[in-house]
Amino acid sequence: MSANPTACLLIIGNEILSGRTQDANLAYLARRLGEIGIPLREARVIPDVREVIVATLNEVRARYDHVFTTGGIGPTHDDITSECVAEAFGVPWEPHPEAWERLQRHYASMTPPGDFNAARQRMATMPRGARLIANVISIAPGFTIGNVHVLAGVPRICQAMFEALAPELKGGAPVHARSVHAHGLAEGRIAEGLAHIQARYPQTEIGSYPFYRAQGNGVVLVAKGTDAAAVEEAARDIAIFIRACGHMPVEGEPE
Amino acid sequence: MSANPTACLLIIGNEILSGRTQDANLAYLARRLGEIGIPLREARVIPDVREVIVATLNEVRARYDHVFTTGGIGPTHDDITSECVAEAFGVPWEPHPEAWERLQRHYASMTPPGDFNAARQRMATMPRGARLIANVISIAPGFTIGNVHVLAGVPRICQAMFEALAPELKGGAPVHARSVHAHGLAEGRIAEGLAHIQARYPQTEIGSYPFYRAQGNGVVLVAKGTDAAAVEEAARDIAIFIRACGHMPVEGEPE
Repeated sequence: MSANPTACLLIIGNEILSGRTQDANLAYLARRLGEIGIPLREARVIPDVREVIVATLNEVRARYDHVFTTGGIGPTHDDITSECVAEAFGVPWEPHPEAWERLQRHYASMTPPGDFNAARQRMATMPRGARLIANVISIAPGFTIGNVHVLAGVPRICQAMFEALAPELKGGAPVHARSVHAHGLAEGRIAEGLAHIQARYPQTEIGSYPFYRAQGNGVVLVAKGTDAAAVEEAARDIAIFIRACGHMPVEGEPE
Repeated sequence: MSANPTACLLIIGNEILSGRTQDANLAYLARRLGEIGIPLREARVIPDVREVIVATLNEVRARYDHVFTTGGIGPTHDDITSECVAEAFGVPWEPHPEAWERLQRHYASMTPPGDFNAARQRMATMPRGARLIANVISIAPGFTIGNVHVLAGVPRICQAMFEALAPELKGGAPVHARSVHAHGLAEGRIAEGLAHIQARYPQTEIGSYPFYRAQGNGVVLVAKGTDAAAVEEAARDIAIFIRACGHMPVEGEPE
């Protein structure tokens, strides 16, 4: 898995840090990036503060192969992601002709026509060299510059932008995962045996996640890695071990 | 707001970074910390990797007044948060007598009695100097060392631990917030007027959050800050402005 390109997600927005809004992009992007073979290695939630955004961008774009940002690309005063990306890259923040045209056309086509005013023009202003990411939902595009991909914060739009971008992303080996549910079993009872299985499959990551449900508690064991055969074998060993503990393993769908 | 103590949250766990598990602790802790007057300034999601956890802990505990961690304190091989905290602080990781006694008693009291085995004993092993945080749900305690508060990842347990700890946290001025909903209004139409209101209340943070619902789209405007009177006035100005745009503002509950 170490040969795969890596990704970091920057979630930009005071509304996430205040607890007002529950982030919904991390889980979606994490899954999709795993499928593409660009595992997400870190995510940060940072406020709409210029110096923080610029410094964080420059730190993580040097450290990871891909950086995805969500949030802060709308028309209001607190939407400052785009100009911060320009500052981080040390390039001018200027009207992007194609984005400008798309938005101008969009507002002209509304009934009644919308005003392509100064606030909306900010959504067509981008770092020099930005390549557009299509937005089939609300038109105002995201963009890529260098290894930074700038997406919207609204989940529906974020996802549409990611899917427009995805075919261009070159991933490594996809990450395979198998899960085994053990109902009624406590983590503390299987921890030692599980550690032995983990030691047998050093390239496969074995995670243990307890669950608490009205129908009863238990634990889900997840084997994950880029070597599909090793993942299958580890999951099989886990199932054998659960059975040896006197419980019935339920092998899950790939996840 | 700058005089308030600050907080950073470290969400530790591969299952969040893979998209398997949707984090539910950030929003809860963010709201509660805001109420207490210790605004959350940053959150990071990092993997169950020793060097990453240690380095990140040392970076953020120097930068923020409080650091909260969630995840990685169970009995399995992938639960390494506690020993990483010890390493970050440069102190031994050793049995904590009170935690040991609580867990021993707990397993002895189960029917049939549970085995207080090596894996479970790891949950009573802590950095020297740790002060326990009670866990009324599943007994195994969290702990505080220095300015770092180590909580469980399971939301119910995380919340119970936070509430046990909360009375000891000394906050600054609580953060007040008022929201004004503008149904049917587009962000781009109000952005300029909103920027003027923001300029009039520099100490109050004004956020603009579009929403897309089956019943219709709109935008929520949120005024937030430690000066309650300024927050009220800003919200009033926003409502007046929305009305001037020909729409009916709906003033929300404090949030």
